[in-house]
Amino acid sequence: MMDFSLYDNSAIIKGIAEEMEELILWMASFGKQEQGGVTRLLYSESWRDAQQALALRMEQWGLKVNFDHVGNLFGKLEGTDKNKMAILTGSHVDTVKNGGMYDGALGIVAGMLALKYLKRHYGMPKRNLEVVSLCEEEGSRFPMTYWGSGNITGRRHFGQIVQMTDENGVLFRKAMEKAGFGAGTHRDSRREDIGAFIELHVEQGIVLERKNKTIGIVDSIVGQRRYTFEVTGEANHAGTTPMMWRKDALNGASEMIRFVLHAARKQGEPLVATVGRVEVKPNEANVIPEKVSFTVDVRHPDAAVLSLFCDRFLLEFMKIADEQELLLRTDLWMDAAPVVMDERLRGRIQQICENRNIAWLRMVSGAGHDVQMFQYNCPSALIFVPSHMGISHSPQEYTSPADMAAGVAVLIELLYSLGYQEEEI
Amino acid sequence: MMDFSLYDNSAIIKGIAEEMEELILWMASFGKQEQGGVTRLLYSESWRDAQQALALRMEQWGLKVNFDHVGNLFGKLEGTDKNKMAILTGSHVDTVKNGGMYDGALGIVAGMLALKYLKRHYGMPKRNLEVVSLCEEEGSRFPMTYWGSGNITGRRHFGQIVQMTDENGVLFRKAMEKAGFGAGTHRDSRREDIGAFIELHVEQGIVLERKNKTIGIVDSIVGQRRYTFEVTGEANHAGTTPMMWRKDALNGASEMIRFVLHAARKQGEPLVATVGRVEVKPNEANVIPEKVSFTVDVRHPDAAVLSLFCDRFLLEFMKIADEQELLLRTDLWMDAAPVVMDERLRGRIQQICENRNIAWLRMVSGAGHDVQMFQYNCPSALIFVPSHMGISHSPQEYTSPADMAAGVAVLIELLYSLGYQEEEI
Repeated sequence: MMDFSLYDNSAIIKGIAEEMEELILWMASFGKQEQGGVTRLLYSESWRDAQQALALRMEQWGLKVNFDHVGNLFGKLEGTDKNKMAILTGSHVDTVKNGGMYDGALGIVAGMLALKYLKRHYGMPKRNLEVVSLCEEEGSRFPMTYWGSGNITGRRHFGQIVQMTDENGVLFRKAMEKAGFGAGTHRDSRREDIGAFIELHVEQGIVLERKNKTIGIVDSIVGQRRYTFEVTGEANHAGTTPMMWRKDALNGASEMIRFVLHAARKQGEPLVATVGRVEVKPNEANVIPEKVSFTVDVRHPDAAVLSLFCDRFLLEFMKIADEQELLLRTDLWMDAAPVVMDERLRGRIQQICENRNIAWLRMVSGAGHDVQMFQYNCPSALIFVPSHMGISHSPQEYTSPADMAAGVAVLIELLYSLGYQEEEI
Repeated sequence: MMDFSLYDNSAIIKGIAEEMEELILWMASFGKQEQGGVTRLLYSESWRDAQQALALRMEQWGLKVNFDHVGNLFGKLEGTDKNKMAILTGSHVDTVKNGGMYDGALGIVAGMLALKYLKRHYGMPKRNLEVVSLCEEEGSRFPMTYWGSGNITGRRHFGQIVQMTDENGVLFRKAMEKAGFGAGTHRDSRREDIGAFIELHVEQGIVLERKNKTIGIVDSIVGQRRYTFEVTGEANHAGTTPMMWRKDALNGASEMIRFVLHAARKQGEPLVATVGRVEVKPNEANVIPEKVSFTVDVRHPDAAVLSLFCDRFLLEFMKIADEQELLLRTDLWMDAAPVVMDERLRGRIQQICENRNIAWLRMVSGAGHDVQMFQYNCPSALIFVPSHMGISHSPQEYTSPADMAAGVAVLIELLYSLGYQEEEI
């Protein structure tokens, strides 16, 4: 084991906590909203300012900086053997509209801080260690997610965005060009030389806080299905139509919604089901609803369980529609398979936490993250730090400096073992 | 009994059917929409055209015409004794947006036709018989209903509309002035000399058609309560929040909606309950709903039953909110008492139907009508003719010429008995 002074020296941990706090506030200055949130949409002015400021800071900290042609920013701590596969850490620089200060940003500045610390204390690693500020993950501006990690791993490409526009009608590729990126501007994004990817991210849930744990070790990222259901009956006068003769779309839809939410509670963790959107037509107090459409979002880390659960509520929905003489239309518009994170890396993170007496929890990520794009190609790990009250995508998002420092300390030790000790990954 | 040739002479009935069909089409020409519906909002151009055309036609048919200062139009067949209380029949001339041809209009032209028939066959009645084209009932332009019948009966007055505007910001009183009405333009609306009011109206429901009846004799108009409920929980990430820790406003609201609709079905006729409006916030597929607001419209002809039913579901709503740790806010924004129609008039209408072998049904009106304003002041009756498929407030609204003729025939005989035979009402 390395001579690792980090945990034994509270002054160092305190320094990291303070520096993380400063870095998070500094990052939040790019796209700061009057209401207190941060809006840093892909290829916007605040996005460009953030990437440029990050590049400058990386350079100041002795990292070798480069952009790829979609706008991913890399800061490299060069290793003695440049032919070895690189270790990459980082997260996404974009935010949702009026989002929080930690989502994405935390993983970038933590990676920078880790490399700075390692360089200062241990010098040159055996292989390249890199931090990446991924250009996009949220899909908040364009109907496209994982644009940064997807281009690096080959799961996204320019062909997918040719005619794509944002809600103001601005073409994706025009926005990219305006920000200084696009084909020919920088090197191609695709990387074949990444040996491992580590992402530190806020949990965006309340599990760690409720269970009083500091580090979440993600075993897998849930599979996810999203449906829209449309239930059609007959609009009629609320006063003159006896209950017996109604074809009330909401009567059917409320049964269905109740069923799927009850079934999810009964099924138990880690399954979650959410009906987030409901639209009623004509939506007037004195007219029996003709049409109700609603979404169902279901997530589970096991593809078979997810599929079985969906089959079960779909059957029940059909039964309810039949019984009430309603028409049911089903649209499955998202169907993402679960992703299991690298087992060896998970074990190593757990070992680090145990050695250093940090309270850890093996858990499932209910949200998607860049790391899942990488896991298809190379061993990858996702480390969570607590989100206060579980709040995310909101100006109220908060992770304490102490929790951030714990996350950075684990990241430093993991990168040390991969970059300075290991021959093979 | 009068020498009443109406029912024995199919040519006369056929003539009335044809004339009603023509009159309905003629009325629909005022405010005809491209999509086929009729839009005749209070004090609009098409409204004014309709009232003026009706006044002209009444005059041509030998009725004495006058307007009151809110725009109600009266056509009088003068009786020998002008000191006796008058008998009034008619309905409202306004429509909902893109409404049907029959709602309101039918009762006006039927009344005109009845007076024309009576005048031609029986000459001067013993008391004044009047037809009225009431200026407004629907509340489609301004947030005000029963403006016509309410002003005649003293339940509406100018003080209620001083600052009222339509959705374009036009002041109620400015619109009234523009149409040529308002204080000082015509005689005051209040009438103390009305001995009885009879309204012929389309059912706007499917009961008569399903039960194969021609005439509906309304025993009472339902009492009506309208609530808006607001259920508040906590918005949270759909993926990262375990089911156990959710405060899902829609989970509570869907239970409540299901409960009230089930309870209404279980309670049985004539109770009806409708949840017509639902709004979810933030209404995003991947966010647990923080707030759901929904309306409940409940109707029953017995005030005690209505009240008991409401108490029951209100208690259940509170229980559901408590169990799920949700906040429930209740707003009762409409609470109209049931109105029982005049028993003697109901009996007389039933007698007419039996004598003339017309299939009748005693029923409850699930919708409000002008007649309920009059019933507070004088004996009043509401007669329904069938609505095909129960459709109303729609361009598809339809009542067959034969059914209309049956309604007019019953109206003629009732007006004959009240106007030519009775000493006292």
